[in-house]
Amino acid sequence: MQKKTNIPKALKRKYPEQIVLVATKKPDGGANVMAVGWVAIASEDPLMFMLGIDDGAYTYELIKKNKEFVIAFPNENMAREVLFVGTKHGRGRDKIAGSGLRVQPADKVKAPLLADAVANFECKLADIYRPGDCPLIIGQVIAASENAKADLKRLYTVAAGYKMAGVRPLLAGKDL
Amino acid sequence: MQKKTNIPKALKRKYPEQIVLVATKKPDGGANVMAVGWVAIASEDPLMFMLGIDDGAYTYELIKKNKEFVIAFPNENMAREVLFVGTKHGRGRDKIAGSGLRVQPADKVKAPLLADAVANFECKLADIYRPGDCPLIIGQVIAASENAKADLKRLYTVAAGYKMAGVRPLLAGKDL
Repeated sequence: MQKKTNIPKALKRKYPEQIVLVATKKPDGGANVMAVGWVAIASEDPLMFMLGIDDGAYTYELIKKNKEFVIAFPNENMAREVLFVGTKHGRGRDKIAGSGLRVQPADKVKAPLLADAVANFECKLADIYRPGDCPLIIGQVIAASENAKADLKRLYTVAAGYKMAGVRPLLAGKDL
Repeated sequence: MQKKTNIPKALKRKYPEQIVLVATKKPDGGANVMAVGWVAIASEDPLMFMLGIDDGAYTYELIKKNKEFVIAFPNENMAREVLFVGTKHGRGRDKIAGSGLRVQPADKVKAPLLADAVANFECKLADIYRPGDCPLIIGQVIAASENAKADLKRLYTVAAGYKMAGVRPLLAGKDL
């Protein structure tokens, strides 16, 4: 049975929650990376993703300027790197070097791919939409890549306070 | 390293993916429930969720009519019920009775709560937005409830083909 509670307390029941990295090209030729948890598919054909990115984020400024970016699914061994880029500001800092993230050139955009991600989606900016207190970035996917390791799994936020880990399904049947 | 691939193939690397139930009141006094995987937080204050719901879904028709609905996090033992409501149409069918889902009255909306969910979020319709091929429903949360069992966990889609299960984090540190 359900018991009434306040909204923030109910929301704490959401974990594990998916997390993605968003890579953008910086004016100096380098790249910036941030972590985003408010992410969902927003269209199937063409494939689009929605990202919730703070007004104050350097990534938001770079997306508005460049009109393109990369969305990556970090792998489950990247918790330390994701924590680094997810908790530090990108202005005046090289988050790629600081985090140890490895990048490689993308196919159709100037932002880099995350070399160790499970998959990368190259996006062009389709729209910015603001239903509440946060701009929602809509990215149309124009190219994709995946890790050569087919069994590499995604990283998740598994508890409040930036606790991140891989997850495994509880296998109930033989068909999984 | 990344290897270029086609977009649908890269997208298959997304699992596990979160899934929610969406409950709406039907004109006959009963309720309808569907499963939605395209879901994310869209605003913190006020709390809003975004849901991608097909144009043809009965739920979409009922949300437009009622301007309110409930979003529930199904618990990890509800795979069978979620599969039922996620793969059958609601017109001319009582999906609550057919699935065995238990409901209870909500506080501020006429749609019901899912009694066995991990948490329920009562929403009023804030906006409908269509960046691509799917309407995105923005719901502003006006009340919340949670399961009295504090350790009950969410259900996830863990593989293509509607494979659903609970998940557990891989514990690397002692602080999780």
